[in-house]
Amino acid sequence: MPEGEFEFIARRLRPLATAPGALDLTDDAALLDPAPGCQLVLAKDAMVAGVHFLEDDPPAQIAQKLVRVNLSDLAAMGATPLGYLLALARSKAITDDWLGAFCAGLAADNAEFRIALLGGDTVSTPGPLTLSLTAIGEVPEGTALLRGGATAGDDVWVSGTLGDGALGLKVLRGEIAAAEEAGAFLIERYRLPRPRLALGQALRGIASAAIDISDGLVADLGHILEVSGVGAELRVDALPLSAAAKSLTAARDAALAGGDDYELLFTAPPERRGDLEALARRLDLPLTRIGQIRAGLDLMVMDAHGRRLEPPAKGWQHF
Amino acid sequence: MPEGEFEFIARRLRPLATAPGALDLTDDAALLDPAPGCQLVLAKDAMVAGVHFLEDDPPAQIAQKLVRVNLSDLAAMGATPLGYLLALARSKAITDDWLGAFCAGLAADNAEFRIALLGGDTVSTPGPLTLSLTAIGEVPEGTALLRGGATAGDDVWVSGTLGDGALGLKVLRGEIAAAEEAGAFLIERYRLPRPRLALGQALRGIASAAIDISDGLVADLGHILEVSGVGAELRVDALPLSAAAKSLTAARDAALAGGDDYELLFTAPPERRGDLEALARRLDLPLTRIGQIRAGLDLMVMDAHGRRLEPPAKGWQHF
Repeated sequence: MPEGEFEFIARRLRPLATAPGALDLTDDAALLDPAPGCQLVLAKDAMVAGVHFLEDDPPAQIAQKLVRVNLSDLAAMGATPLGYLLALARSKAITDDWLGAFCAGLAADNAEFRIALLGGDTVSTPGPLTLSLTAIGEVPEGTALLRGGATAGDDVWVSGTLGDGALGLKVLRGEIAAAEEAGAFLIERYRLPRPRLALGQALRGIASAAIDISDGLVADLGHILEVSGVGAELRVDALPLSAAAKSLTAARDAALAGGDDYELLFTAPPERRGDLEALARRLDLPLTRIGQIRAGLDLMVMDAHGRRLEPPAKGWQHF
Repeated sequence: MPEGEFEFIARRLRPLATAPGALDLTDDAALLDPAPGCQLVLAKDAMVAGVHFLEDDPPAQIAQKLVRVNLSDLAAMGATPLGYLLALARSKAITDDWLGAFCAGLAADNAEFRIALLGGDTVSTPGPLTLSLTAIGEVPEGTALLRGGATAGDDVWVSGTLGDGALGLKVLRGEIAAAEEAGAFLIERYRLPRPRLALGQALRGIASAAIDISDGLVADLGHILEVSGVGAELRVDALPLSAAAKSLTAARDAALAGGDDYELLFTAPPERRGDLEALARRLDLPLTRIGQIRAGLDLMVMDAHGRRLEPPAKGWQHF
């Protein structure tokens, strides 16, 4: 017989609710003490089985992906995470063992990111497993990184490497073939994104605009350009690719248009180049200049010879 | 052709995001400025079509019920609501008109409760429409109403009338018959709960424990008793019933065990009776003493003659 809701909460969820304000999950709502001089930062992402993750993904990694895509939103704002609320709509296919593994994934990320479950809701659904997480973080008042601050002349930067997540999904689906080690690396990048929290926090006061790459580089840079009211020039030959991605012919398209990388894309004035190079060394995380903000509203993608690439028929949005 | 996600956000959701920290829904996360000396209060409830509401309920009322069950959790903590994040997993059956009416319901409650949409996520699902809302409120530091403070000798109080929501659901489902006016009243009580926010805020410093009635009076009083480590005696003849409920034979069972009332159930020392009677007059909301907290861990339900009623075979939890 499957665990009832109260038993599941007591046995599986309460151990995750280590923050005092979670009130051992015995109350109607959670309490949170904001630090003086800080603003709260709130992000909420939902994931549906069969849409946002694969039904047979390991449950612990589904939990970690859910946590991390939300933490990535906090990272893009420069925030320090505090905790999260979870809503879980349980489908009939979900066993107690599955839930145990799912909660072990939450526990691992609680430890890694020093966060705690604060509260939430568990319900049943006749449809697919549906998850929603609200992540809460804080930033010193007035220092949050926003999308609207890019100005002409700013450099465009990205962290890490691009396209790995989208290529990993294609490998998982059997749509492209990769050597064993490269395939494993790309699948790991798809399943276990690394929210760039330390980078986001360090970019406060340096970056003029920031976003995390979840829709794809071109789409997400488009969001910055739209809100900032500027254009940009991107250099395709500058896009940072992993060794695994480089082994595949689809790498460039994945780097331009693939989602699921959860790297940070940000802009900064050229006089901060030295600071950013020092930051990359300190964090041991590549930071790469991939273009420049321009006046106007166009996003121009240039090849290695400085020629403008025409967008594919469907635009750069789809990979 | 249905609206795309970005169009839906721009056209339907952005007008609801009137708080400055919502950043016009253009950013990765929302910002919130906590008032100095306040704690944040966070509640998150999920609702699934066919489970928590009826597929053919009016969309505006589904939106309002979602908002209000979460605000009811804030009310039970004594909090003042600030805003909310919404995750909406859209099923194929949901039309643009449906979404328009749903958002009109949100707009109505934004105005009524002086709150705003802060952010969230919209996704698609092959399953039923699934909604999750995270409500954020605040209370002066250290004043939140909790479940754990009831002590022997405290009175047990409820607001409003009990059982209406559960009876309304039975009328909607055709399981019981009611006269037209009574039926309409009960259905309205089921579909449009009234979060007792002003009461919750006024109970700070008066109530020793509080909860909102969503699982049913006996179950929710049980939650207070469990966390507080006490027992209670309830007097069935004291339960406040609406005129519409009184017209139905199932009223007593609905008042004891029916969920969906979203009235506040709270405990307070006898010396606060005068304050609570004055508060009821000020708020124009009945507050009724229905029993007393006792030492021990039993919940005893007594009839009008002081005889203990035996719980039905399934316990009081089900109606």
